[in-house]
Amino acid sequence: MSNTIGEKVLLTLFGESHGPYVGAVIDGLSSGLEVNEEEMKRMLSLRRPSNKGETKRVEEDEYEIISGVYNGHTTGAPLTIIIPNKSVKSGDYDQFKKTPRPSHADYVAEMKYAGYQDHRGGGHFSGRVTAPIVAMGSILLEALKKKGIEIYVHIKKCAYMIDDEFALHPQVDLDELNTKNFPILNKEIGENMRDLMEKTAEEGDSLGGVIEVMIKGLPLGLGEPWFSSLEGKLSNAIFSIGAVKGIEFGDGFDFADAKGSEVNDGYMMEDGKVRTITNHNGGINGGISNGEPVIYRVAVKPTPSIYKPQRSVNLETKEDETLEIKGRHDPAIIRRICPVLRSMSALVIADLYEMRYGEDALR
Amino acid sequence: MSNTIGEKVLLTLFGESHGPYVGAVIDGLSSGLEVNEEEMKRMLSLRRPSNKGETKRVEEDEYEIISGVYNGHTTGAPLTIIIPNKSVKSGDYDQFKKTPRPSHADYVAEMKYAGYQDHRGGGHFSGRVTAPIVAMGSILLEALKKKGIEIYVHIKKCAYMIDDEFALHPQVDLDELNTKNFPILNKEIGENMRDLMEKTAEEGDSLGGVIEVMIKGLPLGLGEPWFSSLEGKLSNAIFSIGAVKGIEFGDGFDFADAKGSEVNDGYMMEDGKVRTITNHNGGINGGISNGEPVIYRVAVKPTPSIYKPQRSVNLETKEDETLEIKGRHDPAIIRRICPVLRSMSALVIADLYEMRYGEDALR
Amino acid sequence: MSNTIGEKVLLTLFGESHGPYVGAVIDGLSSGLEVNEEEMKRMLSLRRPSNKGETKRVEEDEYEIISGVYNGHTTGAPLTIIIPNKSVKSGDYDQFKKTPRPSHADYVAEMKYAGYQDHRGGGHFSGRVTAPIVAMGSILLEALKKKGIEIYVHIKKCAYMIDDEFALHPQVDLDELNTKNFPILNKEIGENMRDLMEKTAEEGDSLGGVIEVMIKGLPLGLGEPWFSSLEGKLSNAIFSIGAVKGIEFGDGFDFADAKGSEVNDGYMMEDGKVRTITNHNGGINGGISNGEPVIYRVAVKPTPSIYKPQRSVNLETKEDETLEIKGRHDPAIIRRICPVLRSMSALVIADLYEMRYGEDALR
Amino acid sequence: MSNTIGEKVLLTLFGESHGPYVGAVIDGLSSGLEVNEEEMKRMLSLRRPSNKGETKRVEEDEYEIISGVYNGHTTGAPLTIIIPNKSVKSGDYDQFKKTPRPSHADYVAEMKYAGYQDHRGGGHFSGRVTAPIVAMGSILLEALKKKGIEIYVHIKKCAYMIDDEFALHPQVDLDELNTKNFPILNKEIGENMRDLMEKTAEEGDSLGGVIEVMIKGLPLGLGEPWFSSLEGKLSNAIFSIGAVKGIEFGDGFDFADAKGSEVNDGYMMEDGKVRTITNHNGGINGGISNGEPVIYRVAVKPTPSIYKPQRSVNLETKEDETLEIKGRHDPAIIRRICPVLRSMSALVIADLYEMRYGEDALR
Repeated sequence: MSNTIGEKVLLTLFGESHGPYVGAVIDGLSSGLEVNEEEMKRMLSLRRPSNKGETKRVEEDEYEIISGVYNGHTTGAPLTIIIPNKSVKSGDYDQFKKTPRPSHADYVAEMKYAGYQDHRGGGHFSGRVTAPIVAMGSILLEALKKKGIEIYVHIKKCAYMIDDEFALHPQVDLDELNTKNFPILNKEIGENMRDLMEKTAEEGDSLGGVIEVMIKGLPLGLGEPWFSSLEGKLSNAIFSIGAVKGIEFGDGFDFADAKGSEVNDGYMMEDGKVRTITNHNGGINGGISNGEPVIYRVAVKPTPSIYKPQRSVNLETKEDETLEIKGRHDPAIIRRICPVLRSMSALVIADLYEMRYGEDALR
Repeated sequence: MSNTIGEKVLLTLFGESHGPYVGAVIDGLSSGLEVNEEEMKRMLSLRRPSNKGETKRVEEDEYEIISGVYNGHTTGAPLTIIIPNKSVKSGDYDQFKKTPRPSHADYVAEMKYAGYQDHRGGGHFSGRVTAPIVAMGSILLEALKKKGIEIYVHIKKCAYMIDDEFALHPQVDLDELNTKNFPILNKEIGENMRDLMEKTAEEGDSLGGVIEVMIKGLPLGLGEPWFSSLEGKLSNAIFSIGAVKGIEFGDGFDFADAKGSEVNDGYMMEDGKVRTITNHNGGINGGISNGEPVIYRVAVKPTPSIYKPQRSVNLETKEDETLEIKGRHDPAIIRRICPVLRSMSALVIADLYEMRYGEDALR
Repeated sequence: MSNTIGEKVLLTLFGESHGPYVGAVIDGLSSGLEVNEEEMKRMLSLRRPSNKGETKRVEEDEYEIISGVYNGHTTGAPLTIIIPNKSVKSGDYDQFKKTPRPSHADYVAEMKYAGYQDHRGGGHFSGRVTAPIVAMGSILLEALKKKGIEIYVHIKKCAYMIDDEFALHPQVDLDELNTKNFPILNKEIGENMRDLMEKTAEEGDSLGGVIEVMIKGLPLGLGEPWFSSLEGKLSNAIFSIGAVKGIEFGDGFDFADAKGSEVNDGYMMEDGKVRTITNHNGGINGGISNGEPVIYRVAVKPTPSIYKPQRSVNLETKEDETLEIKGRHDPAIIRRICPVLRSMSALVIADLYEMRYGEDALR
Repeated sequence: MSNTIGEKVLLTLFGESHGPYVGAVIDGLSSGLEVNEEEMKRMLSLRRPSNKGETKRVEEDEYEIISGVYNGHTTGAPLTIIIPNKSVKSGDYDQFKKTPRPSHADYVAEMKYAGYQDHRGGGHFSGRVTAPIVAMGSILLEALKKKGIEIYVHIKKCAYMIDDEFALHPQVDLDELNTKNFPILNKEIGENMRDLMEKTAEEGDSLGGVIEVMIKGLPLGLGEPWFSSLEGKLSNAIFSIGAVKGIEFGDGFDFADAKGSEVNDGYMMEDGKVRTITNHNGGINGGISNGEPVIYRVAVKPTPSIYKPQRSVNLETKEDETLEIKGRHDPAIIRRICPVLRSMSALVIADLYEMRYGEDALR
């Protein structure tokens, strides 16, 4: 199921960067969910390039809902959103078909699809394909919110600069985070990151980073042992993004150097409710949500499109070749990936929620 | 599909730690694969407790193949292996039903299954359930080997001690790795780790670590864009193990502090073949294998079963309670998890291989 | 997976009768398949109303391929086709929301989706949604043809009139069948059926029928024992059409009155090849194609939309009510369903073909 | 998913006729369901050969539940049942590997699995594999009964003899049906059928038939439009049985000769509830249960194992050959298939029930 994800709430993704449209179908969702188009536009605007140094491609994201919504609510039938690709300069990309860009999918696509792939703009591998995920995400996030489930995302790290922990900030800061164009808790660090991104763009280079996600209000019991673990399902969804190269839950890789006595999450009673005293496990035990906030972090590699000369090969002549990329690209996607990760998380949670509570559960 | 994984080659897992058997069914596998029972026993022995300080539970793993093998080869019908649970002391576990062990699945299981779960020995959440995965893995690993695909695993890190890189060792060391009871490249570091594990066991505490996996000889083209990415499929498989809390491919979380110009994998011609000059992406671009070795690392948390007093709650009286665990447990599973990760990787690769090359491809 | 079908080649269906578009996404298909738009238009024209007495709704089927095709070939990425709904008269349908039409999905939809469904024109349950299946089918049928697999469909029965058997006609008649607007082998019977359909339309009534499908040239080995049987997969696909209420393979229900000695398909050698002497099993043994033509028949109920007064209830007042349907409807869909069944069959076969022979097998 | 079926409640089937065990795993089922072993034994006894003229193979069905049940209830973890194959005479079958039995799976299995299949007793294609389905079915049927859902099955037709309609008999007769060794409503017709079966067995021949199933008390709303229709899901499950060659819902193939005005199911109010006046559609509209009894019929072919000489071929010498089957076989499976169809129906309904109402819905 290459482009379809989910067990009950299924998302199917389609479209190529320079084709007529990108889009998605979501199926199996409760009928009667409100579709707030203002929120959809707002979410899409957060994914759009806007900061200095980001791609000059103007993506208006004039989405169209072509099925599954009637009188402003989901109908229970598949919901389809299409977004036209307007600002395309395909000429930019012709060279990459024979001289693949390092660390992009150009080379594997040429080989796997025997040259038939639409290579323009990265084709179906383009980050452009995440736009409909974000549009769908806005509907799911609103529905989950009504069930008391909120998802927060911030840029946690970039070039050794580290943002504050969620726990150090009041709820008001968290709420603001999801409306920010550059979602970061510590303003000063945010300024420094943006400065560095701008500078890096001028150098024709790019940056990676770490994004942190927190899912609050999740009821106990989502996820199943073994192959539908909450960690596994979130991971499979999130590794769909080509730039993601790592994921960790709770203490993650820091567990490697810890002792059990230091990181076990003991239990306590709080207001008649069982709580964990700490949350080293990131809200998940045995693959199942335990009622504490789910926390995970995602490693994002530097955008492979850089403007410095790089070593590549000519697939026709079978000779080494130096590649110089022109065009318009982001020096880092850590800002624009935030609403995508929020939406992806919402998708996985909505699926597990309806699996657990039934087909009308999100209504 | 909680306990079933795969698209064409499907594994279904069953069994509880103190039930009569644990086992697995593998379906959709090519007929005509050799079933080497010596290799199966060898693989199972690597998963068994044996080192000092590990659980005293003697697991003989007297597996029985009850379907799908005829005349020493797979038949094409579902292959089922069952392994009896012999050395069980269920009395040890009765207290955990009402006083859950921190960082275990006890509490979520009690709530999710409304008290009906078999809680003894962790029930279906027990690491014991990985034994049939390893038995199945031995068949898959042999079949993949015949196609030139080899999977190597070592303990990469534990308590700030770091093993050598794969690349620094000759092939002979790699080959030896998969036969080692304590798979590590650097013998001295290995000794230190074992000493620490023993000492930690004596203290009643436990350790985490990082395991590194390399898949060599993988052809280009395994994995699909978006929701069947090679990273996503491996992750979903591997997060099935409750102790796993993170995974990273290639440079993984180190990408966060890098520039594109430092970590892009340029291409070169080598013996008429396209190769990447470096392998920061761990053999995967756009979710698809690129022909280079696939490299990933897995974060393993310290075994939650420790013998120091811990804070918990009494689910019946709804009061805080101090828990002292007795019984037999590993101070670290980083040794025993290695053949499991090798087997899990083989499972994902076998599935993708048959999806790409057809139903008889592994014969 | 309500609106998605397939294991490797997946079709996802979307759209509502009076929404902006109906459409489909096909994913997992080989790259490099030719997309013959003339053939697509021809196939769509066969599904369109045109005969006397059929619905007056003019459906131009001005489809648009919005992803997955580049330079006239499939790219390997999801292929999406959308077809705008132009000739819609939604006012006709408002009464059916509170007074459901007998034997339609109106009532179950109102209850299942809690009134949120798009009820206009039958919404997502409308036969209109089969248009994109036919468009997709044209691509698959062309690809299968190149592999020697041909699918033939005719109206087998209607109101006690029975068409000839496939075996009594030469290949030239079969080839012609797939180009016919009213696909029937015996011209005289065809005339009689059309006369009856016209007459029945004038009476405001409707007719059912039986459609017969033959798949020739199918290699041995498609289908799997138990839950991926060729019969089961074809059935699940074909029962998606609400008007289908039965399916039988080979002798089907006639087996009930037969003895084994009369209907067993013995084997013989023919030109060095194993063949069955008869084909009572319709080309399938144990759920797997045996190399003989696959033959099955589908029972289609009379179109529920009739113009005679019918008993219904008012869902608001909870009182009995007489319903008189106005609008435009087919007196029988047995003609228009033929290209749909051809396309559905192609979809199932393409999926099984790529599962068996690998991801590029249809190229 | 060849041997696994379901979306939430998944059944995985394994075992070969003459291997050590046949068995099944059921996963995703509510925890806390009672496991009534008396009922399980009773159901298994109904599937066993016992009537005169049936196979002499004594199958004791000494099943063992090896996972997923604790204290007499389902645990929520995979439930596995294994049944040893005790009375096996494999020598009987060796000839069929090179001289395939007509209308059996011998030939396709030999070709598809390249000779590696376990051919003894039909291997994985054997009806023997249905025993664990019946064992599982007993648990599901009990759970559904507590939700008011009852499934009734009778032999509807054999050799032109037709049993009474469900509607003509009082509830007491229906209840008795599920306890009968030869489930038929009209005793006289039952006697005649049994006589004919005995006589046919003596002649070394076999018989087919039609089985009818009624599911009462099903709530409205099970099944989804298009590819998860109630008809499609039941069909896919039931065509897993190799002897099944047709299925029809409600009026089924009789619709072919009817007019809409004769077979539309009008609505009426009854005790404040919406009911259909007739039930030509067999309780399903648009693929979704409408609250009326679901009724379907299944065409079963004569058992292919007959004792008369038959034409076959020698796959080694590639020459025609006459085959004479010895051994022990049923002259008709229409009796023994009844508990299997009841169990299969329960499986499909349980899956749809939990998809609609949530993971604990059957508790």
